[in-house]
Amino acid sequence: MGCPVGIGPEIILRYFAGSSSNTSYPAVVIGDQGVLEWTADHLGLDISCVSWQPGDPLPTHGIPVYSVSRLTPDSLQWGSPNRQTGTAMARYIEVAVELTQQGVLDGIATCPISKTALRMADYHYPGHTEMLADLTGESDFTMMMAGATLRVTLVTIHCSLQESIRRLSIESIRRNIQLIHSALRHDFGIALPRIAVAGLNPHAGEECLFGTEERDIIAPAIQQFQQSMDITGPVPPDTVFHKAAQGAYDGVVCMYHDQGLIPFKLLHFNDGVNVTIGLPIVRTSVDHGTAYDIAGRGLASMDSLASAVELGAVIAANRKKQGELH
Amino acid sequence: MGCPVGIGPEIILRYFAGSSSNTSYPAVVIGDQGVLEWTADHLGLDISCVSWQPGDPLPTHGIPVYSVSRLTPDSLQWGSPNRQTGTAMARYIEVAVELTQQGVLDGIATCPISKTALRMADYHYPGHTEMLADLTGESDFTMMMAGATLRVTLVTIHCSLQESIRRLSIESIRRNIQLIHSALRHDFGIALPRIAVAGLNPHAGEECLFGTEERDIIAPAIQQFQQSMDITGPVPPDTVFHKAAQGAYDGVVCMYHDQGLIPFKLLHFNDGVNVTIGLPIVRTSVDHGTAYDIAGRGLASMDSLASAVELGAVIAANRKKQGELH
Repeated sequence: MGCPVGIGPEIILRYFAGSSSNTSYPAVVIGDQGVLEWTADHLGLDISCVSWQPGDPLPTHGIPVYSVSRLTPDSLQWGSPNRQTGTAMARYIEVAVELTQQGVLDGIATCPISKTALRMADYHYPGHTEMLADLTGESDFTMMMAGATLRVTLVTIHCSLQESIRRLSIESIRRNIQLIHSALRHDFGIALPRIAVAGLNPHAGEECLFGTEERDIIAPAIQQFQQSMDITGPVPPDTVFHKAAQGAYDGVVCMYHDQGLIPFKLLHFNDGVNVTIGLPIVRTSVDHGTAYDIAGRGLASMDSLASAVELGAVIAANRKKQGELH
Repeated sequence: MGCPVGIGPEIILRYFAGSSSNTSYPAVVIGDQGVLEWTADHLGLDISCVSWQPGDPLPTHGIPVYSVSRLTPDSLQWGSPNRQTGTAMARYIEVAVELTQQGVLDGIATCPISKTALRMADYHYPGHTEMLADLTGESDFTMMMAGATLRVTLVTIHCSLQESIRRLSIESIRRNIQLIHSALRHDFGIALPRIAVAGLNPHAGEECLFGTEERDIIAPAIQQFQQSMDITGPVPPDTVFHKAAQGAYDGVVCMYHDQGLIPFKLLHFNDGVNVTIGLPIVRTSVDHGTAYDIAGRGLASMDSLASAVELGAVIAANRKKQGELH
């Protein structure tokens, strides 16, 4: 359910209200029934919740909710997390991971949390994904932004552009290529994924005229996989996404945050999904934040959540097919 | 006409063959009638050229060509420029500039040239635009990439990403803002242009968590115009182009080559136009190169040339309206 005072509850309500989704992609909410009901009342949504427990069959009507917290209205204020909401939010994640590891659930689609709220509850993680990685004991993971037209991974993520350049290494690019290759095969069911690796500099350096990272770091990383994969690069950054969008590649390995996110958000602003690849459990996430500034106002779009649930279900089915579901 | 052995001649033929363009946007070719006729024969295009001289009225049929060179077939090989083709190519530019300065023409839409060919002819310019700037005596200019959905300018262009970061300064951003503002007003006829300035770092630095250039360089540059323009920024790079494409801004000032060209080429791969802003004469250009690898094969798209001619005509009309045509 994500942060109880962010837009998580309202996009969940809209998701279940909006479609017959729970028959195509059966889902349960790990969260707080009271918060959802209070939010539905507040927004004037005519939708009911049904208490659900692990082992119960899915109800035929209403939103199945496993209540992990019992927050009271007086502890809730849109946009203002506190220690109680932070603790509840962290518990939703822990319980969802446990149920997935036990095989009760096939995967998790997460609504947004805030780092501030996490810290208020004394959980000291840099973010949602790091918490999930820690709970599942995995250290080799990364995020993929996935949409119907474009899939990208990022070799460096949340640091300055200057620092991104410094952090690039043959090893970090190599790991990223392995992760995207494995995810495209096992999670997306593409037998022979076509991977493009973007250059760092304009025109991919134009033969070292505009930088040497392509020659010294990116090309050597790609070279290691040339025999074993369908891999291309370093491709000029200003053409690789056009080609990928035209269908030439199944995924693009990007060198820094905005290199991947500028084209991704241009094509998938509302329906993009953040997939954590490399985890033993299936985890997708909305690609937006808690949006505290508009929480409780009924303005948030549920498109990214719908895409996250759907893609999570597809990945789980692909893993099952290959007997790899944990 | 650009380089005689690049794709210039064939896209010119296709442009004139393809439509009634010469009535909507009357154009003449500054180039070589023999080369065009030889190319038409080679590609089996049934289109005739008509000799044109400054002062002549436009012919009612055929492509009007002002022949500045008389290259012979034996000096021409697709994709292989030499001293003769290089000299001819440079002369087309010089003559086009002269005719525009004299008011015979309203502006120039340029086909691609190559720096190699320019050097072979002993013209030592870093590129096409620098040559035009030198011929017109202008030092304060930059390129704008313009399409129906997106217009971007670049504060730094052809250098490594590392070097782009080093080159950013309050002054270089300030100049770029002034150039885009003036171009949007005078060339595009937008009375009160809405300008966005992109940040450099992820999330525009997220309050200096991911870099300080936004605080130290970009914000101070913007600040100088806050009273006199409709200007916004530094905007997170991964959302600014989505917003611009949705219509929120008339132009986006970008910090480095790929920041602007990744989204621009994603939206305008075939129909993008490169406009040189700040020049006393109107100059648009195709946004692709000589494409020596496919020259003479009839594969090249004329869309960018058509857009360049059309936009050149629009800009010339806007400048005339404002009495600013030189």
